[in-house]
Amino acid sequence: MNVAVLGVGLIGGSIGLAVRQRAGARVSGYDPDEHVRAQALAHGAIDVAASSVAEAVDGAEVVFVAAPVGVLAETVRAALDCAAADCVISDVGSTKRMLAHASADERFVGGHPLAGAETAGVEHARAELFDGAVWYLTPTSATSGVLYERLHRLLTSIGAQPTAIDAETHDRLLASVSHLPHVLANVLVAQAASTLGEAADGRVPAVGPSFRDATRVAGANSAIWTDIYLANRDALLAAIDEHSRRVGEVRAALERGDAQAVTAWNEAARGDREKLLGAGLTGGAVAELRVSVPNRPGVLAQIALALGGAGVNIRDMALSPSEDNSQGVAALWLDGERDAARAGELIAELGFPVAQA
Amino acid sequence: MNVAVLGVGLIGGSIGLAVRQRAGARVSGYDPDEHVRAQALAHGAIDVAASSVAEAVDGAEVVFVAAPVGVLAETVRAALDCAAADCVISDVGSTKRMLAHASADERFVGGHPLAGAETAGVEHARAELFDGAVWYLTPTSATSGVLYERLHRLLTSIGAQPTAIDAETHDRLLASVSHLPHVLANVLVAQAASTLGEAADGRVPAVGPSFRDATRVAGANSAIWTDIYLANRDALLAAIDEHSRRVGEVRAALERGDAQAVTAWNEAARGDREKLLGAGLTGGAVAELRVSVPNRPGVLAQIALALGGAGVNIRDMALSPSEDNSQGVAALWLDGERDAARAGELIAELGFPVAQA
Repeated sequence: MNVAVLGVGLIGGSIGLAVRQRAGARVSGYDPDEHVRAQALAHGAIDVAASSVAEAVDGAEVVFVAAPVGVLAETVRAALDCAAADCVISDVGSTKRMLAHASADERFVGGHPLAGAETAGVEHARAELFDGAVWYLTPTSATSGVLYERLHRLLTSIGAQPTAIDAETHDRLLASVSHLPHVLANVLVAQAASTLGEAADGRVPAVGPSFRDATRVAGANSAIWTDIYLANRDALLAAIDEHSRRVGEVRAALERGDAQAVTAWNEAARGDREKLLGAGLTGGAVAELRVSVPNRPGVLAQIALALGGAGVNIRDMALSPSEDNSQGVAALWLDGERDAARAGELIAELGFPVAQA
Repeated sequence: MNVAVLGVGLIGGSIGLAVRQRAGARVSGYDPDEHVRAQALAHGAIDVAASSVAEAVDGAEVVFVAAPVGVLAETVRAALDCAAADCVISDVGSTKRMLAHASADERFVGGHPLAGAETAGVEHARAELFDGAVWYLTPTSATSGVLYERLHRLLTSIGAQPTAIDAETHDRLLASVSHLPHVLANVLVAQAASTLGEAADGRVPAVGPSFRDATRVAGANSAIWTDIYLANRDALLAAIDEHSRRVGEVRAALERGDAQAVTAWNEAARGDREKLLGAGLTGGAVAELRVSVPNRPGVLAQIALALGGAGVNIRDMALSPSEDNSQGVAALWLDGERDAARAGELIAELGFPVAQA
């Protein structure tokens, strides 16, 4: 398989390494920075360093755009302009609504792997970066099923867990679980530095391990994060307002010395954390469903979104078109019988014939 | 040395293990829960399980009160009532002003080790818990120098870094670097669970590693934390208000799409985090100062507070009284020449003769 990667930093470089090592792909990489291209080549992240988007995309069956958010939309547009009709183009940006224009093209599927590291740069890229990581995909009613399946299978083969979600929900979720935590980490360190500075006359006493963890993402790479904050501005503002409302509630309970309310709030948080972090610990045997689907854009996206929205993970999928290409059978592998049963119900509700294999 | 530990959970049990293994102390332990006493004995955290505070404290040269914040003040009072005149009593509570009444006694030095674990209970206690950890001490003008030195040396011998600080500053600092981060972690998980719950119809998609780190302390043991929040309520309310003010500033910059302000804010946070977490990475040779001090309460406390306030770490100390007991010489070991020079200045400013050894 021929894969193009546009932007070969930490994420793009790791995609290159992963698809080369685990999917036997041949990777053509482009980066506007010649030095980065050379590094990516030396690091084994790409087979060929292309000198333009067009050159990288030429002959590719899958294109990953791993450019910074600030130039993401234009790079996706450039890739769509020169990619072949049967090429699937995806990206790895942290906000997804901004690529709505591209989503009208049946070849484009927005993407966002929940993976990263404290250290940027292709020299830190590694094939294992996506092992077990949720990789959000935002197919739409325009998305080609064949191309979506190709992308899904490739991501599965490099160890990721593709999960379909609509772009608006994605951005709202990410504002809550990523962008807001980054904002709060920044606010925490600034406030602590100010308080400690007043107290400690120049030098600063050590802080505990919980503070270290809580602020690990503080001051994340500005070149990336200013763009992310602004690209997801409206969802982030809403998340901040919700945060302020919740902080106000706790403040009121503390001010009136209401031990019972404080305890109830803390216990609820404990339960929420267990629910959040225990999620994904499914396991068990894989169950297979077979679905008859008409061969038109958006069908697989519709199914993937319905399952993703219900929290049903599609571990793998395969699409077999009928001979006359008018319809096909999608095989879906799910995590255990309960998920398979739930998926069967959801797919039946969508009106497609479905059976367990 | 005979040490008493009152309350033998994670912290008390770890103190017991550490002073037994590293300082050769004989440890008498008391806990209101008979089962916990038996566990502490079986775990090797104490030599003897006492059946009352008086029995545990009898003959002790150092007493650590490691009771929950809710019963801390009364346990400290009970220990002071039955401890000998030359016994030093300390505690490990997360807030310090609440023990102001005890601080009028020359035998009492408030304490707070910045160490802990996600898992409570003596079965998780370990001698290494305090290795390299800052251990705040809050001596006052009433504190006996001899007793302060004994406590300081014992803490140093178990690997901790005793740091003097006044109680009010301590509580304000802890509100910023610990209690507020705990509040925000709770608020974050509650908000994320709510957002994800709306989005995911029952089950919850996985969240990224940054969220996991940012919320590690969410829903911490309510039996401990409700008391901590309420005991430090006024400082915590002030920290929350400062937090809200800072969040409001970022919100305004985001709302007006001010990329420059967002970047500057993020870069400042990066600098603050480096400053905060890089602190304590001193190292280098140890320098020794010798200070002539009058033999009266509060002197060593005064010196320790001045150095602690300036961020100068006292790695170890030893106090040698003169023969007529009217004055003495305190030897202080400091981290390198620069700290020694700064300490010398500060001590001279206090009016005590000081020289580098």
